[in-house]
Amino acid sequence: MHTTEIAVKMILDRWNGSIANWNKHLNALSDERLMDEIAPGKNRGVYLLGHMVAVHDDILRLLDLGEKQHPELYEPFLKNADKVTAQIPPVALLREYWTKQCAFLDEQFGKMQLNDWFDKHTAVSAEEFANEPHRNKLNIIITRTSHLQYHTGQLVMLQ
Amino acid sequence: MHTTEIAVKMILDRWNGSIANWNKHLNALSDERLMDEIAPGKNRGVYLLGHMVAVHDDILRLLDLGEKQHPELYEPFLKNADKVTAQIPPVALLREYWTKQCAFLDEQFGKMQLNDWFDKHTAVSAEEFANEPHRNKLNIIITRTSHLQYHTGQLVMLQ
Repeated sequence: MHTTEIAVKMILDRWNGSIANWNKHLNALSDERLMDEIAPGKNRGVYLLGHMVAVHDDILRLLDLGEKQHPELYEPFLKNADKVTAQIPPVALLREYWTKQCAFLDEQFGKMQLNDWFDKHTAVSAEEFANEPHRNKLNIIITRTSHLQYHTGQLVMLQ
Repeated sequence: MHTTEIAVKMILDRWNGSIANWNKHLNALSDERLMDEIAPGKNRGVYLLGHMVAVHDDILRLLDLGEKQHPELYEPFLKNADKVTAQIPPVALLREYWTKQCAFLDEQFGKMQLNDWFDKHTAVSAEEFANEPHRNKLNIIITRTSHLQYHTGQLVMLQ
């Protein structure tokens, strides 16, 4: 196996492993429990879940896989802090979004060829990319895995 | 730049970025504040810090960079949960260990050639590695970056 192939496999394995770990913790928490703050005065579990769907929704755009599927989640879960937006979707619906989104991303990633991962993502110009070849699609997976792990460390506080 | 080189750079950039982010939060917290629990009944900040030094100490062994420098941290910060070990090093000393450890790892990583990252780490046998070439040194960095992000999400709760 070529080193590039090995590196891409490791990065995607870490993404998938991080999703699985998040799911393990998410599935252990009831809808009611997710309405609690992870610590006094901090974000609620539901905010972390909505935030994750909103951030991963943007991966579609960055990887040129289509339009956002949940643009309405930007305001309550990305632009605004928790408890700012009065009306947010119920936990059960966010769980459904999350599950479908994970399956969709998994399907799309499965169609990508090795070199596709080293193409520029959509938030960088061709000129910038010529000098900064690391601003590619694979790097989106690397940074979003970090982001997911960061919030997984918070979600577990509800257990 | 070759794709393998790009992939290794992205992974090391994410490691370094994660260290910098942890340090930003760590440096914003006083020694006294680090003695507090991140939430009622949860780990204290000092435990997270000691845990991080203990886990990164093991990177030396896994990457064949030498012996552990702080084997005494295994029991209080890895084997045992927080508040089990009566005597732990003061926060100021753990900060010093951490800073020196980061500098040492950075220096060692700087000496590694591209292909060194794809050599097997020390916890896998040559036979296993022949079939599982992803169990290499670079994968240690990938998984430890995840681990660091997970606990960074917890450390910030003290702010």
